[in-house]
Amino acid sequence: MVESDSEYEGPNYPTLEATKPGEKPRVVVLGSGWAACRFLKGLDTRLYDVVCISPRNHMVFTPLLASTCVGTLEFRSVAEPVSQIQTALAKDPNSYSFLAACTGVDTDKHEVYCETVGDGKLSQEPYHFKVSYDKLVIASGSEPLTFGIKGVKEHAFFLREVSHAQDIRKRLLLNLMLSQNPGISEEEKERLLHCVVIGGGPTGVEFSGELSDFIMRDVRQRYTHVKNYIRVTLIEANEILSSFDVGLREYATKHLTKCGVRLVRGVVKEVHANKIVLSDGSEVPYGLLVWSTGVGPSEFVKSLNLPKSQGGRIGVDEWLRVPAAEDVFALGDCAGFLEQVGRPVLPALAQVAERQGKFLVELFNRIGKQDAGKALCAKDMPLGDPFVYKHLGSMASVGRYKALVDLRQSKDAKGLSLAGFVSWLIWRSAYLTRVMSWRNRFYVAINWATTLVFGRDNSRI
Amino acid sequence: MVESDSEYEGPNYPTLEATKPGEKPRVVVLGSGWAACRFLKGLDTRLYDVVCISPRNHMVFTPLLASTCVGTLEFRSVAEPVSQIQTALAKDPNSYSFLAACTGVDTDKHEVYCETVGDGKLSQEPYHFKVSYDKLVIASGSEPLTFGIKGVKEHAFFLREVSHAQDIRKRLLLNLMLSQNPGISEEEKERLLHCVVIGGGPTGVEFSGELSDFIMRDVRQRYTHVKNYIRVTLIEANEILSSFDVGLREYATKHLTKCGVRLVRGVVKEVHANKIVLSDGSEVPYGLLVWSTGVGPSEFVKSLNLPKSQGGRIGVDEWLRVPAAEDVFALGDCAGFLEQVGRPVLPALAQVAERQGKFLVELFNRIGKQDAGKALCAKDMPLGDPFVYKHLGSMASVGRYKALVDLRQSKDAKGLSLAGFVSWLIWRSAYLTRVMSWRNRFYVAINWATTLVFGRDNSRI
Repeated sequence: MVESDSEYEGPNYPTLEATKPGEKPRVVVLGSGWAACRFLKGLDTRLYDVVCISPRNHMVFTPLLASTCVGTLEFRSVAEPVSQIQTALAKDPNSYSFLAACTGVDTDKHEVYCETVGDGKLSQEPYHFKVSYDKLVIASGSEPLTFGIKGVKEHAFFLREVSHAQDIRKRLLLNLMLSQNPGISEEEKERLLHCVVIGGGPTGVEFSGELSDFIMRDVRQRYTHVKNYIRVTLIEANEILSSFDVGLREYATKHLTKCGVRLVRGVVKEVHANKIVLSDGSEVPYGLLVWSTGVGPSEFVKSLNLPKSQGGRIGVDEWLRVPAAEDVFALGDCAGFLEQVGRPVLPALAQVAERQGKFLVELFNRIGKQDAGKALCAKDMPLGDPFVYKHLGSMASVGRYKALVDLRQSKDAKGLSLAGFVSWLIWRSAYLTRVMSWRNRFYVAINWATTLVFGRDNSRI
Repeated sequence: MVESDSEYEGPNYPTLEATKPGEKPRVVVLGSGWAACRFLKGLDTRLYDVVCISPRNHMVFTPLLASTCVGTLEFRSVAEPVSQIQTALAKDPNSYSFLAACTGVDTDKHEVYCETVGDGKLSQEPYHFKVSYDKLVIASGSEPLTFGIKGVKEHAFFLREVSHAQDIRKRLLLNLMLSQNPGISEEEKERLLHCVVIGGGPTGVEFSGELSDFIMRDVRQRYTHVKNYIRVTLIEANEILSSFDVGLREYATKHLTKCGVRLVRGVVKEVHANKIVLSDGSEVPYGLLVWSTGVGPSEFVKSLNLPKSQGGRIGVDEWLRVPAAEDVFALGDCAGFLEQVGRPVLPALAQVAERQGKFLVELFNRIGKQDAGKALCAKDMPLGDPFVYKHLGSMASVGRYKALVDLRQSKDAKGLSLAGFVSWLIWRSAYLTRVMSWRNRFYVAINWATTLVFGRDNSRI
């Protein structure tokens, strides 16, 4: 029995009951990110019914999220409804999509406990229910690391959800407007328009690049009173883009600097409403603070009473099974190889999650065809080859029609690495082909074209 | 001296000081709606500097707002930044756009008092400042009428701003998702999915039409579990579309009914969290309540110590001047002819506001050329012909590729009135030509085309 430390395991909760003999087996998927959606997309729904449980009814195309903050892309272009990715969720009477958070798992009873995410508009709040599974796939993702620093959650913005991007955009435009008011001191103007980004990985670099694009092109044209005050500072503890080829790192550094981004090596010690304090004691006043450091296990994962990998993720074997619990699998950011597997925990990357999603859904379709989809049927089934991750390369935009493409398979390998405008074209085309639906591919292309011709949109909505 | 009943007329507030001799006269415009933006668009900025003060930095293309709630159009397509409508606000060092609400006017000193609209992120909250004007144009709009009924503001949605449309959309998608949860009773499911619209004018009718489109086309395809539960009820005290030709009204009634909208004649007496009560005592449970009755004077207008028209709007003469205060003009929903003018107060329509905006800006450009733009210079200037409103016709969509076009100049005139698909084409083309910028025309056309091909988008963002 694996329960979270919560008080509501009441057996009286409404339940989506277990499937009966003769009915299709039910796969319950927790999550709506890269891993979950790649899995959902490929699942053969002639073999399985599927239930998706997530507080979010859409997938976020995270590599393009930074572009939405400054209006290069529209928010809707980077979101794909889960029910479009797997249409059985929309159409099949025995498949369901629940807007809820999972609060606990009973691996003996093969049940998950859920709590609805709502507005306070159901007659009883919060609403609890249970869902029985034949197979459970945990792909619930990760949370940003705040290193125990107070003030991060209250004052900084993360950049992982569309709502984050929307809030960042609103704050940015608000600060631009407010800084124009009569009587604002020079000091206050500089503070309001100082955008500080913490974390020099692809997210932080892409956002800094987009922001500097926005400043150099749009702010200059549309905010005449304050265009000389707005600045971007990127603070990183070590090297920016540390997983990229050293030549590309130098290129990124030069390019960002040329675009006016101030690169600072430092460690954040304190976060206050109007300033941060670094470990060397220096104070950095800011108007907008974006926190894009690494990620770690979520509260939900921490609460699960399952063996964990190094770093605290749900422990899995080479087939992404949770050995301690039959019929439970885990993948993506929330999962990591157990020590006894003898392989390092993979980085928390979209690419890893997607590859794992593909591997696992192919495994499920195989065992489903062998009638091992139902609960407690797959224990001794041969599962085929284990999962092997092959890094296809990394890409990051640095703004202003320039990007980096690093096609080496690992940090020490040789291989192709490109930078510049051609890379930017590759970056954009790759994303266009990988976006989940024709509708969004169309929208993204249109957005980019429109921004090119008309400039970014800056209605504060 | 005309001040609102507020406590902060402090002379120490930061001030945008009065223009000096030799400098261009400054026009201060309060508002960012139809009247304000039509005025701003046409203002000759070689003659005037301009300051726009509004809590909103964009204009909302209200006829298309209903379409954004269900995803036919994107929110951004119906919003136009004020600084794009009048580029001097973006580029000219002596023109300004302030994100603030006006709290009072000192007509002797020629000053307006302002309070910033923000997030609580300025060092002092709230932030007050003053702006001196040579000429003041009050176009601050109106507020929805709630007839003193408790609960409207807490539980119902208005449909006048993009944020309203966003909230309606989120709630609608949330209710669709929540109603699918295990264990939800039939009664609760029906309540959650009952969308009730109060007010049978164009806004209410258009929204009901869009909603029934959404249900018949998208919900049917994407929400298999609840598609038979979702319903739309439109409640109107008198006749729907009462300003339209009677034949068109009958057409609209038939068409809405055919699309599944239940038309109810009734008067709302009470509004509670989960139900409304009509004056005949009947109770109507709802999951989504949209309040689109008429509009009336805002709190700001009520607070101004100026003579008012019938209905409580700021009183103006036939040249849209406020006779009691030199250099002050008012137009749009917030203004109405004084009784002594002998003309009826015009309806609160976008068309009226736009015509008035055009009239007034042409007047301003004329007197500006005669060097009467500065304060206290235009008192005896001949102003030309007074404003005359000529109704060009009314249009309303009723959903499902059908619309009404009523080209009569008044309720009792004869004239062309059309209904059906051709009208729908006219409705859509008219809006395309009237949207303020090429960018948005492009976006609107693309949105419509995409919805036609791919269906509406229903990510809950």
